[in-house]
Amino acid sequence: MREYKISDKMVSIKPSAIREIFKALSDPSVISFAAGNPSPDAFPLGQISELSKIVYEKTPVLALQYGITEGYAPLVEKIRLRMKDKFNIDCGNDTTIIVAGGQQGIDLTSKVMCDEGDVVLCEKPTFIGALNAFKANGAIPVQIESNFDGISIEKLEKALIEYKNAKIIYLIPTFQNPSGSTLSLEKRRAVLALAKKYGVIILEDNPYGELRFRGEELPTLKSLDNGGGSVVYCSSFSKIIAPAIRVGYLSAPSELASKIIVAKQVSDVHTNIYFQLICDLFLERYNIDEHIEKIRVLYKDKCLLMLGEMNKKFGNTGIKYTEPDGGLFLWCDLPESIDLSEFVKLCLERKAAVVPGGTFLADEREASRSFRVNFSYPSNEQIIAGVDILARSAMDLLRGQ
Amino acid sequence: MREYKISDKMVSIKPSAIREIFKALSDPSVISFAAGNPSPDAFPLGQISELSKIVYEKTPVLALQYGITEGYAPLVEKIRLRMKDKFNIDCGNDTTIIVAGGQQGIDLTSKVMCDEGDVVLCEKPTFIGALNAFKANGAIPVQIESNFDGISIEKLEKALIEYKNAKIIYLIPTFQNPSGSTLSLEKRRAVLALAKKYGVIILEDNPYGELRFRGEELPTLKSLDNGGGSVVYCSSFSKIIAPAIRVGYLSAPSELASKIIVAKQVSDVHTNIYFQLICDLFLERYNIDEHIEKIRVLYKDKCLLMLGEMNKKFGNTGIKYTEPDGGLFLWCDLPESIDLSEFVKLCLERKAAVVPGGTFLADEREASRSFRVNFSYPSNEQIIAGVDILARSAMDLLRGQ
Repeated sequence: MREYKISDKMVSIKPSAIREIFKALSDPSVISFAAGNPSPDAFPLGQISELSKIVYEKTPVLALQYGITEGYAPLVEKIRLRMKDKFNIDCGNDTTIIVAGGQQGIDLTSKVMCDEGDVVLCEKPTFIGALNAFKANGAIPVQIESNFDGISIEKLEKALIEYKNAKIIYLIPTFQNPSGSTLSLEKRRAVLALAKKYGVIILEDNPYGELRFRGEELPTLKSLDNGGGSVVYCSSFSKIIAPAIRVGYLSAPSELASKIIVAKQVSDVHTNIYFQLICDLFLERYNIDEHIEKIRVLYKDKCLLMLGEMNKKFGNTGIKYTEPDGGLFLWCDLPESIDLSEFVKLCLERKAAVVPGGTFLADEREASRSFRVNFSYPSNEQIIAGVDILARSAMDLLRGQ
Repeated sequence: MREYKISDKMVSIKPSAIREIFKALSDPSVISFAAGNPSPDAFPLGQISELSKIVYEKTPVLALQYGITEGYAPLVEKIRLRMKDKFNIDCGNDTTIIVAGGQQGIDLTSKVMCDEGDVVLCEKPTFIGALNAFKANGAIPVQIESNFDGISIEKLEKALIEYKNAKIIYLIPTFQNPSGSTLSLEKRRAVLALAKKYGVIILEDNPYGELRFRGEELPTLKSLDNGGGSVVYCSSFSKIIAPAIRVGYLSAPSELASKIIVAKQVSDVHTNIYFQLICDLFLERYNIDEHIEKIRVLYKDKCLLMLGEMNKKFGNTGIKYTEPDGGLFLWCDLPESIDLSEFVKLCLERKAAVVPGGTFLADEREASRSFRVNFSYPSNEQIIAGVDILARSAMDLLRGQ
C-alpha cells in the first residue's frame, strides 16, 4: 500500500466529530437537532421553479457559458443597493463579489490575508467550518472567551497585544453559530476600535443577520465601519433562499477584493451562473423581504416552541440554555455532574442528535460541557419529542450516579 | 488610505494578461480566438430545460437543501461506471467525488499535497489556472520542455532528481491547453514509471479527452496506472454539457481523497446539488455519447476550417501551427522576426484576439514567440475573418521592418 505525504496545513484537520453524527442522521427516525439546515418549508420552491423557466427561455446561454469570476454584474448591483437601503452598508470604497456560499468568503479571505503561522482571533466557541478554513490556509485560530453579548473585549485586546501576527478578527456578530449569541452595540463599537488600533481586519460573517424574530435590529460592523476599510463582510442566500444553490456574497476594500477575486478564480473559476440569475430575478420580481418575514415567523414559532419545552422539562436537569432573538441555534450547558460525551451518546441512542461543544473549539479535545441545538430544521413534533429525549437522558445520567 | 498586507502565496499572483484581453472581448465586434469557451451550439439546452422541470417536480428539496461534500451518490456511481466502461478506469482503490469544475480538483489536490515551497512539475507551456492554483497554495510550478507528443521524459527525470521536494507531476495529456498536443502512449508509460520511481503523484487533468475528432484513442494515465495509486484524475462536464454548471469530478486514492474531501468542505461545503441532479438525470435518460459525438463533429468542422484557412493564408508569414486531433486549441509560433506583443496588439486593434504564450508560463515575463488560438467558440465566419486578420497583421509587421 502506497503512503502519501499530506501537506502540514491539511494533515492536522480531522474530519469533525460532527460528520460522525451526520452519518447517524441518514437514519430517518433520528430527530436532528444537529444540522445547520434551514427548514425546507422556508424554500421558495414555486418561485424558483418559475424563475428557472424564465432563465431557460430568455438567457439560456448566459446561464450555461463561462462567466466572470466577480459574479453576474446585475445581481452584484442589486445586492449592493439592498445592503445600502436595508442595512446602511455603503460599499462605496468596496468591491462586492459573488462567492459560492459564505464558506468560500471565509476561505478566500483567510487565504489572501494569512501566511503560515499567522493568527486569526475568533469567538469561543465558533463555527467549525471557519476554524478549519483558517487551518487549511496555514493560519492558527485563537479563540477568545465569549458570552451571550459576544466576545470579551478585554481578552480580545490582550490577544491583539500578545499575537503580533494576528491578521483577522473573525466574528459572527448576530445569532452566532453555535451559541445563538449577539454582539452588543457597545461591543461592536469596541471591536471596531480595536481593529483600527491594531491594524487588523474584521471578517464579519453574517449568514443569519436577517433572521431576527424579536428584539431590536443592530447595525452590522460593516455599516459602523462606514467605509473605513476595516471590515470584510460575508453573507449569503443560503438561509433566505436555499443553501444548495451556493450563492453568497462578499464585500471587501477593493485592494483586498482584487486579490480575493484572483483567489476565487484559481479555486473554482466562478460561481454557477444559473442560480446567480435565479437570485437576480428573485430580487427583481418578488419581494424578498416579505419572503424573509415568513421565514422569521416560521423560526420564531419553532424557537419559542423549543424554549417552552425546555422551560417545562429542563427544570430538574440543571441544563442551562440561551434564548436567542433569531438565527438557527441555541446553546446548552450541562451541569458539571453530567458527562457531555455520555449525554450525546445516550441521546443519539434514543434517536435525538445534538452537536457536542468541542466541535466548535480550535482544539476539539478541549473539555466542554455544552452542546448546540438547531431549531430551524426539525418539525414541531420532533422539537417536542426531541427535547423530551434530552431531558430524560440528562435525568437518567443524573440518577445513574 | 489603509494598506493591506497580502499573504506571500497570493501577493505574487498577478491578474493575468489574459484578463486584459477578456476586457476587450466585451466589444462584440472583436473576434475571440482567446477564450477557452465551448461553443454555445454544443449546449444541450432542450434536455437541460426538460430535466430541470423533473428536478423541481420530483426532488425539489434534495436540489435545494445542504448536501454532503462528496457529491450526490447516484451521480458519483454513474461516473465511476462510465469511466470503467468507456475509459477502462477502474477506481476500485479510489474514492470518486464531485468537485466544482476541474479547476477545483487542481486547487484541492495541490492544497492537500503541497507544503510551501514544494515543487509541481508541469508542461511548458501549461494551463494558467493550474499554474496560479499551485502558487496560491504556496507551491512552485516548474515547467518542463514539451513538444507535440508531450513532456520531455529526459528533462522530467532530470527535474525529479533535482527537485527532491517535487510532489506532483501535473499533466493535461490529451489535447493540452494551450498547445493542443497529446502525450504519446510511449511517453504515458514512461511518465507513470517515473512517478512510481520517484514517489510523486501524477495529477491528470483531462477536461478535453472526450473531444477527439480524429486519430486513435489513447488510454488515460489513470487507466494505465490500473489502481496503482499514482494518479489523481480530474475531469468535468464543462466541455461536454456546459461550463457554468460547475460540475466536475475527481478520482484519487482513498487516503488522499479523504483529505481532499475535508479541503473541499472548508472551501465551499459542496457543489451545487441542482446541476448534480441534472447531470445524473442526463446520464440516466439521454445518451451522452451521442451528444458528445455531435460536439466532436462540430469541433472537427471548426478546427479543419481553421487549419484550411491557416494553410491558405499563413504561407508567407512564417507562422507555424499545430494540428490537433481534438480539444479546443491550437498553438502558433511566430517567426523570430515578428515581435509577439506587437503582433497581439495589432491583431486586437483589427478586432481579433489571441492569447500570447507568456500567459502559460510560470514566469509571465519570460520571452515567448507563441500564441494560443481557440477554434470551438468563434463562428465559421469569424474563423475565416479572424485568420485573415492574423495573416495580414503578420505580413504587415514583416513588411514594416
